[in-house]
Amino acid sequence: MIKIQDMLIIDCLEYVNWDRELFEHAKSSGLNIIHVTIAYWENTEETHNNFKKWDEHFKNHNDLIMPIHDYDDIHKAIELNKIGIIFGFQNCSPIEDDIKKIEEMHNLGAKIMQLSYNNQSLLATGCYEDRDSGITRFGKEAIKEMNRLGMIIDMSHSAEDSTLQAIELSSRPIAITHANPSSFHDALRNKSDTVLKNLSQSGGMLGVSLYPFHLANGSNCELSAFCQMIYDTAEMMGIDQLGIGSDLCLNWDYTILEWMRSGRWALKPDFGEGSSDNPSWPKQPNWFEDHGGFQNIIEGLDSIGFNKEEIEKIMGKNWLNFFKKSFQKLQ
Amino acid sequence: MIKIQDMLIIDCLEYVNWDRELFEHAKSSGLNIIHVTIAYWENTEETHNNFKKWDEHFKNHNDLIMPIHDYDDIHKAIELNKIGIIFGFQNCSPIEDDIKKIEEMHNLGAKIMQLSYNNQSLLATGCYEDRDSGITRFGKEAIKEMNRLGMIIDMSHSAEDSTLQAIELSSRPIAITHANPSSFHDALRNKSDTVLKNLSQSGGMLGVSLYPFHLANGSNCELSAFCQMIYDTAEMMGIDQLGIGSDLCLNWDYTILEWMRSGRWALKPDFGEGSSDNPSWPKQPNWFEDHGGFQNIIEGLDSIGFNKEEIEKIMGKNWLNFFKKSFQKLQ
Repeated sequence: MIKIQDMLIIDCLEYVNWDRELFEHAKSSGLNIIHVTIAYWENTEETHNNFKKWDEHFKNHNDLIMPIHDYDDIHKAIELNKIGIIFGFQNCSPIEDDIKKIEEMHNLGAKIMQLSYNNQSLLATGCYEDRDSGITRFGKEAIKEMNRLGMIIDMSHSAEDSTLQAIELSSRPIAITHANPSSFHDALRNKSDTVLKNLSQSGGMLGVSLYPFHLANGSNCELSAFCQMIYDTAEMMGIDQLGIGSDLCLNWDYTILEWMRSGRWALKPDFGEGSSDNPSWPKQPNWFEDHGGFQNIIEGLDSIGFNKEEIEKIMGKNWLNFFKKSFQKLQ
Repeated sequence: MIKIQDMLIIDCLEYVNWDRELFEHAKSSGLNIIHVTIAYWENTEETHNNFKKWDEHFKNHNDLIMPIHDYDDIHKAIELNKIGIIFGFQNCSPIEDDIKKIEEMHNLGAKIMQLSYNNQSLLATGCYEDRDSGITRFGKEAIKEMNRLGMIIDMSHSAEDSTLQAIELSSRPIAITHANPSSFHDALRNKSDTVLKNLSQSGGMLGVSLYPFHLANGSNCELSAFCQMIYDTAEMMGIDQLGIGSDLCLNWDYTILEWMRSGRWALKPDFGEGSSDNPSWPKQPNWFEDHGGFQNIIEGLDSIGFNKEEIEKIMGKNWLNFFKKSFQKLQ
């Protein structure tokens, strides 16, 4: 049996209300590197406050976690046996209307930014809009600036044409950190084969998601079906372009989900992927309820026919290689 | 000869760096009501500061100007022989990402707001974008809220489909406060016959512009050509749907034009309607260099064949009627 502790594990998207117990569990479950979300609709000031909350985490749990500021920090975290934390934004709200704030946020530690989150942003269209205008004038400038700085462009919550344009306009490969193929489960948040093929051809990465609304049969999705989806996606995209972006959400109450869905743009709650009958957090599949589930995925990938080298790529090495080429600043 | 002092004069868009001399000249030139711009890219805090600057103007020039908070204030301004000032935003930047700020800004005195300014905004697409996604999810909410409050939707700098959708989605007539027909001069900022017909059929208003980039032959546009354009537009839209929105810009240096064009979204200046060869403010036509030019327009309209009643409608009465039906709050 393949043991998780022998393998590099990178989860390229989580949104967890962290406390010591959760850090400890993530560590004992074998996680090495986690991309954490620190903004959905937060503006500049609110994002600064979220960075400060993480300063507290790093101070209070220095034995368990450390921030990742560059590629070398990833190896340092592994050596020191700490979880490396990569900061990301699920929206461009932290930069507000100011291109110069991309560098400001990058200096503070943001390594990944989505160009839009469900709705139209100043940079790109979100996947919940009726129509997609693609990358905007500001968006084209932002892509150039992110490319220069080595900030990864993430299109997980963006619309189809915007995503295809981002792939084309970006001089560096981009990522879809957390989504699944629409062919597996047809949801606004999942991605067409066209997007996934363009993504992989340009050297980009897909992180497969375990958020129930992205899974066939939702909370009842079987581990084997999930792993078969990874197998099929690897056939389409190539084994080197795939990783995990679990979209694991833990320890939040419903008000946070309302914030994620409705921000400040709606007077009445928008139910997003849920519905008025079923507004709250969806139940995770019983084989992936928390960080302990990563071991189950490894076993599932083994059962579906991946060899050890392939499993290592999916569970972390592909993201590691992607970060290596992505984080370097161009001048 | 028709005298301007006998007539209600409303200019539904100006951007002037006001001082006492300019207020005095506007008053002696016969202006009654002016819609002034107090935001292009300004965020909430910057817009608050611009409101405060106007508090100073109202204090220092109380004998010349007064703010218009509702329809009755227009008649009060006329009775008191003061210029009535209507506040407007050329962009939705003052509300940032927050639907509740529409009411906040309305309470502060904003009566007119454009949904986008040249670029994509959170509400609608601007006329300089390559593609137009129409009114966004947030935009649909904002239109409902503006309709409820009695804040006029202005699509002067918005793109074609966004404008057509705004006309359709809004329960109240909307305005294009300052633009000309594309058939007169083909510019990204001017409007197609389709837009203008839909606008007039829904009871909306067009304010014709005297900004040289919106005029056939630019700075050399003849008064007769401008008035013929008004005549042709009145034939198409009806005599009741037309007014003046001069887009008169006075007393600003080039840095302000850079701000209007590039805001904070571009690292290098964008030249907007100008070009790198000719980046600065365009020269006004010699018959409309300042507020004194309104008398020339009246004479031009007379020469082109409008009767006195029609000229009165174009010069102010149409805007007055539009404000009457637009400013009332719905509950």
